[in-house]
Amino acid sequence: MAKDACELCMHPGGEVIYRDDNYRIVLVDDERYPGFCRVIWNAHQREMTDLSTAERAILIAAVWQVEEAVREVMQPDKINVASLGNVVPHVHWHVIPRYENDAHFPNPIWGEVKRTPASAELARRSGLVPRLREKLLERFEQSLL
Amino acid sequence: MAKDACELCMHPGGEVIYRDDNYRIVLVDDERYPGFCRVIWNAHQREMTDLSTAERAILIAAVWQVEEAVREVMQPDKINVASLGNVVPHVHWHVIPRYENDAHFPNPIWGEVKRTPASAELARRSGLVPRLREKLLERFEQSLL
Repeated sequence: MAKDACELCMHPGGEVIYRDDNYRIVLVDDERYPGFCRVIWNAHQREMTDLSTAERAILIAAVWQVEEAVREVMQPDKINVASLGNVVPHVHWHVIPRYENDAHFPNPIWGEVKRTPASAELARRSGLVPRLREKLLERFEQSLL
Repeated sequence: MAKDACELCMHPGGEVIYRDDNYRIVLVDDERYPGFCRVIWNAHQREMTDLSTAERAILIAAVWQVEEAVREVMQPDKINVASLGNVVPHVHWHVIPRYENDAHFPNPIWGEVKRTPASAELARRSGLVPRLREKLLERFEQSLL
């Protein structure tokens, strides 16, 4: 796939919370999954093992930082982390807070829908997102000091 | 979940190719996905961020080793890597060779089935598995030297 046909080369891929020379952290716009984040490598690489060992370490450390912030703020029942890229083969990580009463649990979010989540519960989770933005910024800006 | 109710504490989780004090590499028995491997942390931990930084580095380095071996031998169109654990909340990584003509592509393997893969193609991929076993053993036993 040429860079000018790659969605993650042409577009940010979500609301950008933090960006440096290597990667960006975005909030994913999915109303069923407030707090769903992606960590996107800026350069057009296909697989994690196409990155150098040092680059992999930088990117995966960012994934763990995001996982920790999501756990702290969103208090999910489980975290799901995945790098797939079948549709957009440009290295990016999904970090997804999962709850036993969410739309797909215990299926992956790409699996069969199991229920309609309660709107009050979704509203409560959406209400945590501003705090998640702050936490992510704190963590990633601190790491620059 | 108590350890004695945890499938990955009680059972190997697949055909064990390699095992050390920290983790094991298993081949998954899924006839649609020859070469599908899992890297399973031996201790009962729930999330990657429940491991220490050093432990995470050990485990994820093993995941990249498996990814490299799978790419080299299975020559997939794409690699999918994921740590989910909604059903079995014990840290384990899926490393899945994906092909444009496999059962679910471009969906994740947990998504909607798209086609019945050609049996000749599945047989060809299954035929590569003995070489994958060898490659994995070479890589992981070498890393002990």
